Amino acid sequence: MTVDPLLEPLLAGDRRALAQAITLIESTRSDHRERADALLGGLLPRTGKSVRLGITGVPGVGKSTFIERFGLSLLEQGRSLAVLAIDPSSKRGGGSILGDKTRMEELSRRLGAFIRPSPAGATLGGVARRTRETMLLVEAAGFDTVIVETVGVGQSETAVADMVDMFIVLLLPAGGDDLQGIKRGVIELADLIVVNKADGDLLATARRSVSDYQHALRMLRSPTAGWTPEVATASALTGAGVAEVWQVVERFMAAVGEKGVARRRADQARAWMWNEVGETLLAELRKHPGVRKLVTGLEREVEAGRATPAAAARRMLEAFHGR
Amino acid sequence: MTVDPLLEPLLAGDRRALAQAITLIESTRSDHRERADALLGGLLPRTGKSVRLGITGVPGVGKSTFIERFGLSLLEQGRSLAVLAIDPSSKRGGGSILGDKTRMEELSRRLGAFIRPSPAGATLGGVARRTRETMLLVEAAGFDTVIVETVGVGQSETAVADMVDMFIVLLLPAGGDDLQGIKRGVIELADLIVVNKADGDLLATARRSVSDYQHALRMLRSPTAGWTPEVATASALTGAGVAEVWQVVERFMAAVGEKGVARRRADQARAWMWNEVGETLLAELRKHPGVRKLVTGLEREVEAGRATPAAAARRMLEAFHGR
Repeated sequence: MTVDPLLEPLLAGDRRALAQAITLIESTRSDHRERADALLGGLLPRTGKSVRLGITGVPGVGKSTFIERFGLSLLEQGRSLAVLAIDPSSKRGGGSILGDKTRMEELSRRLGAFIRPSPAGATLGGVARRTRETMLLVEAAGFDTVIVETVGVGQSETAVADMVDMFIVLLLPAGGDDLQGIKRGVIELADLIVVNKADGDLLATARRSVSDYQHALRMLRSPTAGWTPEVATASALTGAGVAEVWQVVERFMAAVGEKGVARRRADQARAWMWNEVGETLLAELRKHPGVRKLVTGLEREVEAGRATPAAAARRMLEAFHGR
Repeated sequence: MTVDPLLEPLLAGDRRALAQAITLIESTRSDHRERADALLGGLLPRTGKSVRLGITGVPGVGKSTFIERFGLSLLEQGRSLAVLAIDPSSKRGGGSILGDKTRMEELSRRLGAFIRPSPAGATLGGVARRTRETMLLVEAAGFDTVIVETVGVGQSETAVADMVDMFIVLLLPAGGDDLQGIKRGVIELADLIVVNKADGDLLATARRSVSDYQHALRMLRSPTAGWTPEVATASALTGAGVAEVWQVVERFMAAVGEKGVARRRADQARAWMWNEVGETLLAELRKHPGVRKLVTGLEREVEAGRATPAAAARRMLEAFHGR
């Protein structure tokens, strides 16, 4: 097998090679797919050396400003950073919330940083696969910190949490009924909650939010063995607390340990493999002409209680197997 | 097609016919399966008329005593009750926590109640399917309330929440660090938390727990549109608060409304159908001789980072498709 011409420059940290490799991975052409697979296979031994962080937060929480500030403070400490976005709402030709590179203008001009918007026009599964593989590429290119960010459309937080070492949730200072606005299931993915916009008039509210969230976190088991989730405040505007987030990350990595991180990554990879297998099988079934004729009718029968789900499933599988 | 001889007595509420039909559903023999499917098809129009409740709680929370007391109070109000258990740890020949009928001795002697232990020796998926279908049988037999209970092994709470109208979590009076003992993800399934053992020395602690849990619930979105989760206290020992739980159930059903319940049931049924399809396809793949030869090796390669999950998935699918 010939070695891909992109491999060597990519391992040397060449940004053009990196960008080309990402384009290759995002392509849906089958010859591109084969080349991408071979390339990934070749660089796998050089991956896995970064700290993988997931960050989520609703629009308005100040996510871009936070990541920019946080990223700049990492660069000052001599680290390098790749920011990848997962946004299943992203459409080709604009409309994406996370697709705008200029959101992090200062960070994007720095040599030690690499910002990649969400690949457009795909399902969450497709976006997640490409982001996972892009993470491998940036690791091979030498970035020692990766942030995968999401606005939290659909199940995207779970998808991100399933590909990173540590998951950070950005929240607004809030209290009382406002707390109900937090998306279901997100809090319990959090290794760290950062209450952003803890400045000016909101400072007091932010401090109250911290104790509220701490209280709530006590009700939930930690997503990570060996670590008790924490709550911090930050102001992306003034910069207060932003650099300190990295100290929490370092304490987290030390508490979980190399073995703990390796075990999590192994579990994530195995789960991803089985997920790909399951998704592909279901996609093949859905494409089958005999199944396509039945699907809508069976769904309606089942929804209306005219067929049991088990019986409808059997009929679908019989059609798929041509019986 | 001939009508199953069990159909008519079952619809008339004959308990022997009901027990035989459940045995049929629990059988793994393919001729039994076909007969069960036909029988379920015939009685489907007579199902769906019950209030479907899910109840979970760890061993020691007093679940059996609570359900017995609660059940007896329902019978006094002229209702009828079937109690089904989901316990994937249940083994043939004993060892099950929920398999013991005599746990609810007084309730099990009553005419208006029917108690069925968990089917033994199966995966959660298998147990869940059989419990869903048993629920249809007891509804057809005329029971107007169904309780599906679980001790919470593996993902069993989610499985139960996905087959009922309202999900109730029984908890012990506790505070501080004890709260961390609650299984991850369970609190956010709760439409109602009942702090049990709110009697004697534990009464004050129970009251504190209520406000702790209320506080925490405010952080999570309600699992049910139109309903804000509540926290109540009860003592299965003294009976205090037990009958009042039914009042909450009635308020819940009124708040969600007939349309809301119908929509949830339709969603549950459709999801169940697709879940069955997906699980069956994966089981077929796992049984394939070519795949069986590869699985362990591929899992190890992926876990060790020597193959990407996507590439490993493709190799598995190629083996399955005989390429």
